[in-house]
Amino acid sequence: MKLRPLGDRVVLKKVEAEEVTKSGIVLPGQSKEKPDQAEVVAVGPGTTVDGKTIEMNVNVGDIVIYSKYAGNEVKLEDDEYIVVRISDILAVVEG
Amino acid sequence: MKLRPLGDRVVLKKVEAEEVTKSGIVLPGQSKEKPDQAEVVAVGPGTTVDGKTIEMNVNVGDIVIYSKYAGNEVKLEDDEYIVVRISDILAVVEG
Amino acid sequence: MKLRPLGDRVVLKKVEAEEVTKSGIVLPGQSKEKPDQAEVVAVGPGTTVDGKTIEMNVNVGDIVIYSKYAGNEVKLEDDEYIVVRISDILAVVEG
Amino acid sequence: MKLRPLGDRVVLKKVEAEEVTKSGIVLPGQSKEKPDQAEVVAVGPGTTVDGKTIEMNVNVGDIVIYSKYAGNEVKLEDDEYIVVRISDILAVVEG
Amino acid sequence: MKLRPLGDRVVLKKVEAEEVTKSGIVLPGQSKEKPDQAEVVAVGPGTTVDGKTIEMNVNVGDIVIYSKYAGNEVKLEDDEYIVVRISDILAVVEG
Amino acid sequence: MKLRPLGDRVVLKKVEAEEVTKSGIVLPGQSKEKPDQAEVVAVGPGTTVDGKTIEMNVNVGDIVIYSKYAGNEVKLEDDEYIVVRISDILAVVEG
Amino acid sequence: MKLRPLGDRVVLKKVEAEEVTKSGIVLPGQSKEKPDQAEVVAVGPGTTVDGKTIEMNVNVGDIVIYSKYAGNEVKLEDDEYIVVRISDILAVVEG
Repeated sequence: MKLRPLGDRVVLKKVEAEEVTKSGIVLPGQSKEKPDQAEVVAVGPGTTVDGKTIEMNVNVGDIVIYSKYAGNEVKLEDDEYIVVRISDILAVVEG
Repeated sequence: MKLRPLGDRVVLKKVEAEEVTKSGIVLPGQSKEKPDQAEVVAVGPGTTVDGKTIEMNVNVGDIVIYSKYAGNEVKLEDDEYIVVRISDILAVVEG
Repeated sequence: MKLRPLGDRVVLKKVEAEEVTKSGIVLPGQSKEKPDQAEVVAVGPGTTVDGKTIEMNVNVGDIVIYSKYAGNEVKLEDDEYIVVRISDILAVVEG
Repeated sequence: MKLRPLGDRVVLKKVEAEEVTKSGIVLPGQSKEKPDQAEVVAVGPGTTVDGKTIEMNVNVGDIVIYSKYAGNEVKLEDDEYIVVRISDILAVVEG
Repeated sequence: MKLRPLGDRVVLKKVEAEEVTKSGIVLPGQSKEKPDQAEVVAVGPGTTVDGKTIEMNVNVGDIVIYSKYAGNEVKLEDDEYIVVRISDILAVVEG
Repeated sequence: MKLRPLGDRVVLKKVEAEEVTKSGIVLPGQSKEKPDQAEVVAVGPGTTVDGKTIEMNVNVGDIVIYSKYAGNEVKLEDDEYIVVRISDILAVVEG
Repeated sequence: MKLRPLGDRVVLKKVEAEEVTKSGIVLPGQSKEKPDQAEVVAVGPGTTVDGKTIEMNVNVGDIVIYSKYAGNEVKLEDDEYIVVRISDILAVVEG
């Protein structure tokens, strides 16, 4: 099962930090907080506002920063997603 | 009796999870929570905003995720429906 | 006396459920609740928003569902009406 | 002295119910409540919104129903008026 | 010193009622309240909204009624003025 | 150091009243209050809203009245400025 | 890692004042407060509103003043950034 976003919406999945301890044990999502970072998992087809097409200028796999109070949290088969509008994505994390 | 939605509205019906136990008994709507998932039961004809026709890009039978605080709950002959605008539908659940 | 709605307004009258008991007695408006259902009693001429004419796509006699917090209650000669905008009518009840 | 409303404004005067008792005594404004009914006493020249002229489709002398929380109360020489926008007038009472 | 209003603004000065007693003594601004009445003392050049010029259809010297919660009170050399937008002027008092 | 305002913004500096006592001593900013009066110290290049260029119709050196709750206070090298939009300037004090 | 802002967004980094004491010790960010001053570290490609391209008229390296309640704080590899819209930048500090 997967989510196909409508309009100018983007489906995100929170990035949980993992940390490998010296002994090689992976500690998922505890030690480092990465707030507001998420991976793009699906991109809507875009929409038109005031006769202008909104460009969906992110790609699946991008790590993005999104606006704190934006979006709807959605649970699907034990996975949690955030569905935001493209305008709620502030920046792409690069490099 | 059925609801014919006006404008850009869509009539939804909440999806209640059923679970079949090993003994074959169906437990309706208790064990698994599927929040904000609903089935499209009727689609309005669409409307025009700022000279642009809003596309009603969902179909009857689609399972959709809709915005948490959107929509009006409507009771009709013991069935409960949610009437939302198409813009309150975030994504279609596929596969 | 009657109400002639202006612009994109519609005059509604709440539907009160009646129930005929086995003995034939009519019990008005007690046993069954029909919230937010109303009958269209008058339809305004429509209006124009952003150069687009708003279609008044309901007819006198239609049973409609309207948005919960919309409309103004109006009393006229002991009858109570609700005056709403056409955009506050969610759906028409059919069949 | 009188009020000449500007733009899309309309000057209203509340209708106070009078009741003639059997003995012929007129009881002003006590027995019957007529909330939100008012008589049109002056109509502004109209205005233009988004390139569209707003029609001032009420006439002096019309009894109208206006939106509950709209308008400004104005006192002029012991008379009280309500100045509303034409869009706050819901319906004309006819017949 | 005087105020030259910008855009669609109008400078008003509250009208204070004076009353001459039988003995000829003038009692300024106590006995009669004239709320929301003001005299136009300066009119801005107007502005353009959505490609449409807003008409500044009041003149210096007009007595006007303005919206209760509108405007900014301004003190200039011991005189108090109210600066409002033309759209906050409800009506002109005539005759 | 100075502030170059962007868009339709204007940099203001509050006017503090000075009063020369009979003995010639200057008492800065205590005796006379001049609320909401400020001197224009820099004017932005203007901007375009809805296809219309906003005119920046104030000049450096003008004493202006600005809207009470508008603007951002900014401190730069011990001087305090207020940065407002041109639309928050109500009037120019003349003469 | 760096942030690539989308649309009309700008990535800022707060300017922390440093002060060198007479003995040559640098005291970071304590003695002098420089509120709301930030350095531009990345500029988005701009966007279009109402058919008009918003000019991204700041450059990387500019020290700017931004609106107090605007922007989203973002943490990336122990650095803190503020992502604002270009319209939330009030002025450029020059000289």
